[in-house]
Amino acid sequence: MSISWIAADWGTSNLRLWAMDASGQPVEHRTSAEGMGGLDPDGFGPALERLAEGWPADAPVIACGMVGSRQGWVEAPYAALPCPPLCPDMARAPGGRPVFVIPGLKQTTPADVMRGEETQIAGYMALNPGWDGVICLPGTHTKWVEVSAGEVVSFRTFMTGELFALLAGNSVLRHSVGDGWDAAAFEEALGATLSRPEDLAARLFRIRADHLLTGTQGAEATARLSGLLIGAELAAARPWWLGREVAVIGAQKIAGAYVTALGLQGVPAVEADAEAMTLKGLAAARTLIGESA
Amino acid sequence: MSISWIAADWGTSNLRLWAMDASGQPVEHRTSAEGMGGLDPDGFGPALERLAEGWPADAPVIACGMVGSRQGWVEAPYAALPCPPLCPDMARAPGGRPVFVIPGLKQTTPADVMRGEETQIAGYMALNPGWDGVICLPGTHTKWVEVSAGEVVSFRTFMTGELFALLAGNSVLRHSVGDGWDAAAFEEALGATLSRPEDLAARLFRIRADHLLTGTQGAEATARLSGLLIGAELAAARPWWLGREVAVIGAQKIAGAYVTALGLQGVPAVEADAEAMTLKGLAAARTLIGESA
Repeated sequence: MSISWIAADWGTSNLRLWAMDASGQPVEHRTSAEGMGGLDPDGFGPALERLAEGWPADAPVIACGMVGSRQGWVEAPYAALPCPPLCPDMARAPGGRPVFVIPGLKQTTPADVMRGEETQIAGYMALNPGWDGVICLPGTHTKWVEVSAGEVVSFRTFMTGELFALLAGNSVLRHSVGDGWDAAAFEEALGATLSRPEDLAARLFRIRADHLLTGTQGAEATARLSGLLIGAELAAARPWWLGREVAVIGAQKIAGAYVTALGLQGVPAVEADAEAMTLKGLAAARTLIGESA
Repeated sequence: MSISWIAADWGTSNLRLWAMDASGQPVEHRTSAEGMGGLDPDGFGPALERLAEGWPADAPVIACGMVGSRQGWVEAPYAALPCPPLCPDMARAPGGRPVFVIPGLKQTTPADVMRGEETQIAGYMALNPGWDGVICLPGTHTKWVEVSAGEVVSFRTFMTGELFALLAGNSVLRHSVGDGWDAAAFEEALGATLSRPEDLAARLFRIRADHLLTGTQGAEATARLSGLLIGAELAAARPWWLGREVAVIGAQKIAGAYVTALGLQGVPAVEADAEAMTLKGLAAARTLIGESA
């Protein structure tokens, strides 16, 4: 099988590569822990070549993610909304191999940024030509994105995923959460903050108090924590999903929680896998650059 | 000066002792980092004697705080509301020296607990006999407490302080916050989440986005983070302060932020120093136990 180009999802923690054939299908997939966070500016090129060893040395690379941030390999300045998710003005990394980095997107009012999600959005739009609606991308920094006539019109970021990780791993609630899932507890907690989002900080402590007074912990506490945070987010994001066409792009577990939560509000959201969308988006970028690359 | 007894504020991180005379005035103050969090059950007695060295070996100790938790020296089970802040049924630590530990308070519905704050509340009530109203105790886990006819009637805990510490120290916002204070930024952020508390998670990320896009950081970012969290808490705690008599007990900086925030809502809150209230509360507990101790 002939390798035509290389797709790269280069985030803060990991580097993911796919060797791609000329038709845009992945031939081979490799992953390393050499994410942007652990690399000096001089380290990106060698990290890429280590992981791509044995693949054609002149195959162009199309990359998305934090590799294009100011602290990354080469800065790919944010493109300003409204614009298509893929900006044709890609950054070119230094070195012999042609490496193109997809710019993130920025919104001036209210101030907001994304880097990496634009590629997943492009993938979803490539698979669903002419689709208008709202794309929710749950993650460390969850994005709600309005797409219309092939352009990203506006978006809003919520720190929900990072709050969950900090509370479950570093707060007093770390003693209460555990493995597993409790669908009823998730649903109850979701409803509580969806109707009274201001109660979030008090409801969070109640997980601790219930653990001390009634022994509630483990899966139930984890699902409650998740439900409280997603409920508060959905309350704020209501204009983004109420009566709208919604697609959720994310890793399976968290995307499923959002689809469930939206379903409980009567919104039948479509679910799409994050990695598949990234790959489709990188392929769309490859087409945009053209065969000249 | 004669030492009659020893007051102890023994929290998770620190041990604070005061040698007290018979009239309830502090004669000497000492502090160590031997908090509950770093001690085995056998370690509490020696830690106490190390810090109290040279003071009368038979002087009784009145202690409050996490020393009375299940992971502490001796468990002082929570007293159930409604009740006076000081439960006469104090726990007695093992060993030769008489050491009395003040129980925390618990509320069944909704589940909530406090341990340490009850002593500050007792101190405030000892200084203000007959006072009815709401006491706000900002800290890692901020408490709003309703006091009526000498009893604690109900309370509610908000994880605001812990959220601030996690977000400022461990989240993506750690790159944006800095020393100093910006009163205008605090007020603007406070108003934003007080009127739209559901926007908290999105407003938090906007601190990051504003840093990336406009360079806003340092004191302004810190004050915004604080204002957003306190604003969301005040929105949820509205029934506790609207048209009520409010006292704020806390360390100077954070208590001042709450008094300012309440003043902006037209509520003239009284401010009291946390350490002074702890000492008054421990003295009230000493009186409650009586000279038999």
